[in-house]
Amino acid sequence: MSVSSFNPPVRTLMGPGPSDVHPRILSALARPTIGHLDPAFVQMMDELKSLLQYAMQTKNELTIPVSAPGSAGMETCFVNLIEPGDKVVVCQNGVFGGRMKENVERIGATAIMVEDDWGKAVDPDKLESVLKKNKDVSIVAFVHAETSTGVLSDAKTLTSIAKKYGCLTIVDAVTSLGGSELKVDEWGIDALYSGTQKCLSCTPGLSPVTFSERAINRIKERKTKVQSWFLDLNLVMGYWGEGAKRSYHHTAPVNALYGLHEALVLLKEEGLENAWNRHQLHHLALRDGFEAMGLNFLVKPEHRLPQLNAVGIPEGVDEAEVRKRLLLDYNLEIGAGLGALAGKVWRVGLMGHACNMKNIIFCLGAIDSVLTSMQAPINSGAAVSAAKLAAS
Amino acid sequence: MSVSSFNPPVRTLMGPGPSDVHPRILSALARPTIGHLDPAFVQMMDELKSLLQYAMQTKNELTIPVSAPGSAGMETCFVNLIEPGDKVVVCQNGVFGGRMKENVERIGATAIMVEDDWGKAVDPDKLESVLKKNKDVSIVAFVHAETSTGVLSDAKTLTSIAKKYGCLTIVDAVTSLGGSELKVDEWGIDALYSGTQKCLSCTPGLSPVTFSERAINRIKERKTKVQSWFLDLNLVMGYWGEGAKRSYHHTAPVNALYGLHEALVLLKEEGLENAWNRHQLHHLALRDGFEAMGLNFLVKPEHRLPQLNAVGIPEGVDEAEVRKRLLLDYNLEIGAGLGALAGKVWRVGLMGHACNMKNIIFCLGAIDSVLTSMQAPINSGAAVSAAKLAAS
Repeated sequence: MSVSSFNPPVRTLMGPGPSDVHPRILSALARPTIGHLDPAFVQMMDELKSLLQYAMQTKNELTIPVSAPGSAGMETCFVNLIEPGDKVVVCQNGVFGGRMKENVERIGATAIMVEDDWGKAVDPDKLESVLKKNKDVSIVAFVHAETSTGVLSDAKTLTSIAKKYGCLTIVDAVTSLGGSELKVDEWGIDALYSGTQKCLSCTPGLSPVTFSERAINRIKERKTKVQSWFLDLNLVMGYWGEGAKRSYHHTAPVNALYGLHEALVLLKEEGLENAWNRHQLHHLALRDGFEAMGLNFLVKPEHRLPQLNAVGIPEGVDEAEVRKRLLLDYNLEIGAGLGALAGKVWRVGLMGHACNMKNIIFCLGAIDSVLTSMQAPINSGAAVSAAKLAAS
Repeated sequence: MSVSSFNPPVRTLMGPGPSDVHPRILSALARPTIGHLDPAFVQMMDELKSLLQYAMQTKNELTIPVSAPGSAGMETCFVNLIEPGDKVVVCQNGVFGGRMKENVERIGATAIMVEDDWGKAVDPDKLESVLKKNKDVSIVAFVHAETSTGVLSDAKTLTSIAKKYGCLTIVDAVTSLGGSELKVDEWGIDALYSGTQKCLSCTPGLSPVTFSERAINRIKERKTKVQSWFLDLNLVMGYWGEGAKRSYHHTAPVNALYGLHEALVLLKEEGLENAWNRHQLHHLALRDGFEAMGLNFLVKPEHRLPQLNAVGIPEGVDEAEVRKRLLLDYNLEIGAGLGALAGKVWRVGLMGHACNMKNIIFCLGAIDSVLTSMQAPINSGAAVSAAKLAAS
């Protein structure tokens, strides 16, 4: 058995996440560990909450990172807001809606599905007609940015429809936070979870969440205990409460939180709207490059997620071989299709720190080069200049 | 709101955890992030599993780090092995037995408690008499090393009693792993969870777990779905399975796993038994120092946990003020008492990288100095030389 230290290769991460981590964040991870009850740590936690409130555009007091990956953030929202017997509308247009359904069912609640094709946005009219027919639904859950397909759904409209029918909303913003417009308070979102390893350019492992007053009241009025001790917000709220009142729940992942703090400082320095605009601008450059090469997008222009570009694979190409060559010869990671889209698309991420012109030129050049060497039917040599033009 | 980077103070961590993190581990955390499906990462995961098997002294195939803190490792064991209606014996002799009870009840199962006083070890005779009376119990859960009191219970004997009555065991080894003798296979433990921030000298945030074949069979034969999607081992097993068969579950906390890998390489380099012996040797030195000063241990010598020393507070001393001065004037963190022991003991950790003679001399000297300045009734000046003598 090997007993030597692990020295990872240096990759460019342009898949569905994790994305390239900013060097300032990597440095922050290596700062000296302090105790999770240390006054200096408590102050850092307070700053982290404020920075998250900024990133999510909310004044919600309960705005914190769950000490586990996005899947646990999802579960935090579901197990706290839903009780056995509840009826929940889940909108599904990709992998993550299916995971929401699993969460609902494991609570002993019923999921009423609103389904749209993979690659399409959630249809607000379908949601409304389901809510009209099912008066006893109290929660609507949907994915803002589907990482499996590269679709951005209209969270503002979906939330307003849910509100009209007296429902609370649970929103998956794993891939949208920091990359696409997201306004928790203005749009009236009640519960939202995200991840750190997408447009925040941070390492994976934490899940920022936020809950409105309406959501907190629902949690406080539960008739049953939350089925998870670790994710029970009644306990977690005590842990992330005001300094003096803080009570021990679990040991916080101290250094991972240093990293998230630094990621959010970087976002604040750039400015949230500037970050959104940067993702959009570079997406257009990448799009022009892919289209010049002859690759087509899966998603209609009006629903495309700038930070996750699902493009079709040229006919006759062994797509896994392409990804393998990109990884081994170019140290470049792009993503495969998931589920129904496996073998049909590549998923090219432009997230956070990875979303820059150098990466776009490199990625287009490398893909062009590999596809040309495999004699794929592409318009070789056109991509990079098209992308540069779009960005100028 | 502050938008500057967070630069933590440099502390010496001798509380109940996190403990001082080895600089090689901090460096590992800052290595470049790669994708969680990258072949280089998959190879690192395989090494990590082998290293964990060594640390836990087991050949169990299902030996992995849960991507969340120790509390989530605990919950992983309980929600996977227990179904609604099951009867579980929980031995409680401190804070963490109480948390086990919470876990059992939130599953809809029944916890039959075997209680011992805080500061005492779990009494094997009490366990046996409860198992004799309750033939329908199928799981026994206990804490190997109680971090709240500094007690080491006899895991080997407790496990053999559980086996005699046909029960599987769930063992909390959060504070024992890497610090005290622990032999999963030889002792016949079925499920065990630990933490990274104690005797492994790593940062907090991950929970190594292991499951025997008997435990896996029980999980596979469940009649109900595991209530947590995130912690469902049926899904997690696919994720941590052999390279080729690996299926996506959640995004692994890549850099945190680099840290754990490095921590386990350090443990392998030192040798497991050497690490156990180092904790014992330094505990004796610290003990002699405290006793020379006039401070008494809470726990009887035969049940003392070397890595967590609970010592009584001298009469008339404002214990919170002492800890505050140690932290602010000496950058030294020691722990307060928890629950029933709040205000009655300090908990002084000697865990992993923090378990060394420099720290012992510093800690005894600093405590002596603060207590003397507060005119506490101690034998001033005697501690450091007594500790040095014990270690020589």
